[in-house]
Amino acid sequence: MAKELKDLTKADDNYSQWYNDLVIKAGLAENSAVRGCMVIKPYGYAIWEKMQAVLDKMFKDTGHENAYFPLFIPKSFFSKEASHVEGFAKECAVVTHYRLMNDPDGKGVVVDPDAKLEEELIVRPTSETIIWNTYKGWIQSYRDLPILCNQWANVVRWEMRTRLFLRTAEFLWQEGHTAHATREEAQEETLKMIHVYEKFAQEWMAMPVVVGHKSPNERFAGAEDTLCIEAMMQDGKALQSGTSHFLGQNFSKAFDVKYLDKEGKLEYVWASSWGVSTRLMGALIMAHSDNNGLVLPPKLAPIQVVLIPIYKGEEQLATMVERLEKIAAELRGRGISVKIDGRDNVRSGFKFAEYELKGIPVRLALGPRDMENDTIELARRDTLTKEVVPQAGLPERVEKLLDEIQENIYKKALDFRNSMVTPVDTWEQFQEVLDTKGGFISAHWDGTPETEIAIKEATKATIRCIPLDATPEDGVCVFSGKPSKQRVLFARSY
Amino acid sequence: MAKELKDLTKADDNYSQWYNDLVIKAGLAENSAVRGCMVIKPYGYAIWEKMQAVLDKMFKDTGHENAYFPLFIPKSFFSKEASHVEGFAKECAVVTHYRLMNDPDGKGVVVDPDAKLEEELIVRPTSETIIWNTYKGWIQSYRDLPILCNQWANVVRWEMRTRLFLRTAEFLWQEGHTAHATREEAQEETLKMIHVYEKFAQEWMAMPVVVGHKSPNERFAGAEDTLCIEAMMQDGKALQSGTSHFLGQNFSKAFDVKYLDKEGKLEYVWASSWGVSTRLMGALIMAHSDNNGLVLPPKLAPIQVVLIPIYKGEEQLATMVERLEKIAAELRGRGISVKIDGRDNVRSGFKFAEYELKGIPVRLALGPRDMENDTIELARRDTLTKEVVPQAGLPERVEKLLDEIQENIYKKALDFRNSMVTPVDTWEQFQEVLDTKGGFISAHWDGTPETEIAIKEATKATIRCIPLDATPEDGVCVFSGKPSKQRVLFARSY
Repeated sequence: MAKELKDLTKADDNYSQWYNDLVIKAGLAENSAVRGCMVIKPYGYAIWEKMQAVLDKMFKDTGHENAYFPLFIPKSFFSKEASHVEGFAKECAVVTHYRLMNDPDGKGVVVDPDAKLEEELIVRPTSETIIWNTYKGWIQSYRDLPILCNQWANVVRWEMRTRLFLRTAEFLWQEGHTAHATREEAQEETLKMIHVYEKFAQEWMAMPVVVGHKSPNERFAGAEDTLCIEAMMQDGKALQSGTSHFLGQNFSKAFDVKYLDKEGKLEYVWASSWGVSTRLMGALIMAHSDNNGLVLPPKLAPIQVVLIPIYKGEEQLATMVERLEKIAAELRGRGISVKIDGRDNVRSGFKFAEYELKGIPVRLALGPRDMENDTIELARRDTLTKEVVPQAGLPERVEKLLDEIQENIYKKALDFRNSMVTPVDTWEQFQEVLDTKGGFISAHWDGTPETEIAIKEATKATIRCIPLDATPEDGVCVFSGKPSKQRVLFARSY
Repeated sequence: MAKELKDLTKADDNYSQWYNDLVIKAGLAENSAVRGCMVIKPYGYAIWEKMQAVLDKMFKDTGHENAYFPLFIPKSFFSKEASHVEGFAKECAVVTHYRLMNDPDGKGVVVDPDAKLEEELIVRPTSETIIWNTYKGWIQSYRDLPILCNQWANVVRWEMRTRLFLRTAEFLWQEGHTAHATREEAQEETLKMIHVYEKFAQEWMAMPVVVGHKSPNERFAGAEDTLCIEAMMQDGKALQSGTSHFLGQNFSKAFDVKYLDKEGKLEYVWASSWGVSTRLMGALIMAHSDNNGLVLPPKLAPIQVVLIPIYKGEEQLATMVERLEKIAAELRGRGISVKIDGRDNVRSGFKFAEYELKGIPVRLALGPRDMENDTIELARRDTLTKEVVPQAGLPERVEKLLDEIQENIYKKALDFRNSMVTPVDTWEQFQEVLDTKGGFISAHWDGTPETEIAIKEATKATIRCIPLDATPEDGVCVFSGKPSKQRVLFARSY
């Protein structure tokens, strides 16, 4: 670990390497023996579990139930929705056989050629098709609607260039799939769920996001409208952190799902789908961390407070740990998660660095003088400041401090994000801001896919979203000079 | 639903059809478009989630952490552990390609022959190989041990004959994988976890189980010892409900995982693995249910109490629902999960039948006379009895009743299970008991695989386990007449 701590790349030197180092050295995840697939290590998984628990409760509080649908999708299902097949049935894992046999040459096992599937199965890249094929059996009349299902699952998209959490061949996610009697209801659901994601990002991840519509180019394959939350990373690149799609009747028509309305007429069902993934882990890391390691918002930190004895000799260690146990019990009593590190084989300075790397929000260090004075050293990870405080009243103080840290991390990220939104009115400005400052560029766009593609080809920047709260404003497209009614946000992105 | 309720097969007529009907009509699961893969419906998944939450807490309370390992396993990994490959690398889903392309003939999509993987990937049937390949990077010295990881995941075993929950191609499970410095520690872990499963089965599922060793024939492929919990279903067949394996150094040797001990010597690491799956859903259903439907133990019931107004006219419905809301709030205050069914489009009798089918432990029905007398009708699902009780003191009464039902269900299952353990001393008796009564047969066995196989071929019964708590007893093998030191449990099984 000592070696690992030293080797953390500085964010300014190489942001991408800093990110990768951090994920690995903080024990969040690592690459596996299978190309593009990651191992999520216990510390990383503990953060993901906290995210899951909060999101799951938010979904249930908004009336959703969990279910589970098959990992495999028959190949032919993808061809049923024209645009969906283009978007999803290309780079994917294809199961062609269902049996191995001993190698006739005696070396290990080989695929049994006699066990070829009649129709290949695709490992789900997303589940609209298999779910709408299932919903067909669940829906007869308006009384069966709405269906408000979510599933927590793994999905596979065969990415050629992968990065831990941000883009992996297999990733974990949740996908909500809802069925409604009317267009309005499905649209309302789509909007409701993007606001659930917004609330989660801001209140739990302490990460400000812009909510908006995707441009038609960037829409989910098979959607009539895609809403998204977009976050700004510290290197000036945007990160799409969650999406919610209004699917119209595309999938109900593809899978022939109709319902009998109150007047006895058969109508196609309306749909939404929405999801967030382990990509949020990447967003969380890049939104707050620094050259010393992770900075975790207290609400998602698996360990919120670490307690460390600064001792001389075994006897003192025992007395100190006893005192720390008492403090820990009081903190736990307030629902705070704590860890006492009484290891005697590493030095305190090493422990300090390790917990900074792991982003533990608060560190309490108890030294010999603190034992005499009934004080303790309290350090916060977000500001790297410390002070000696009385042990009396510590639980209240720590509880308040955790809230304060959560707010401070959010405020810092919000100030940064706000400073990274630059309105520009000319194509020269657009290019210059993108290359020097980065961040979101707020610019007029003529609304055509052609212009968006041309801008992307020229600069690698895409329209991240058309913000929901944008005020109408007449202008001219920064690229084509054609008229525009509203600014949109461009950025380079993850 | 009315039609569905009527059509539930009687358990005595056809147990297997009764089971299948029940799973489908109670809305627990259904078959999907993918052969052998099921859809777990919201009500079934809600029960599984309750199981997961309890088990997850038990694992964490015993020091385990969750992590996540890849869905895919390189084919060559299976060949590294000799007996493991025999057991697991045969009937499995094989990924051979990573891309589809538009059919040159213009009909949908086809596998792109240029996108063939160099090495095929197997969809994990269990994860020992990929996990031990990962642990190699995590373990250097005794200070890195023990590793106590669990993962919640989906796995795939290509079964030819599938049954909802009991045997499906894809199923959900948890798999614990631990690494230890010594044989003793790994064996202790193996034993500890089978007792966690035993406690879960008995205290939460209200299902008595026998804990024992598997015979060498029935061991996990790659294990030195397999411990199991075996439950008795109402039709006299046994169901293996959980297993915990002592893996010795088999996987550490296959993947070359060594650690430096305190004396500076390199040693191979010792291992255990343990798991339970959605098969537990099948066990839960078959342990308690009856011809009216599911009987759920209150501790795992997603809805513990249903409240139904027996009303005439809309106005009365509103008043009654108001009263029921008050009662529901009081019940919720005690942590009881409740549902009020105020639907006005189905009759009360229909609702009663529906909640019996779904196994809701307690039903409260409020009629006009109850409104006058401040009483309510209380019915319990396990005994199908009902009584009119005062509304005063109802929350305490219901809370106590739920505990009583949990106990009663367990006691009933225990009495049944005990009645289904038959000691036999001759081969004739063995066959007769098996064909007439079924259940567990407690008999002497000479300890050889040959005898076990011969008995299986003659009767389809296998050794379910060699009970941990069996008392040594000299005898002769019921089949071979050779000497034996202990009785073992035989049964036909799921």
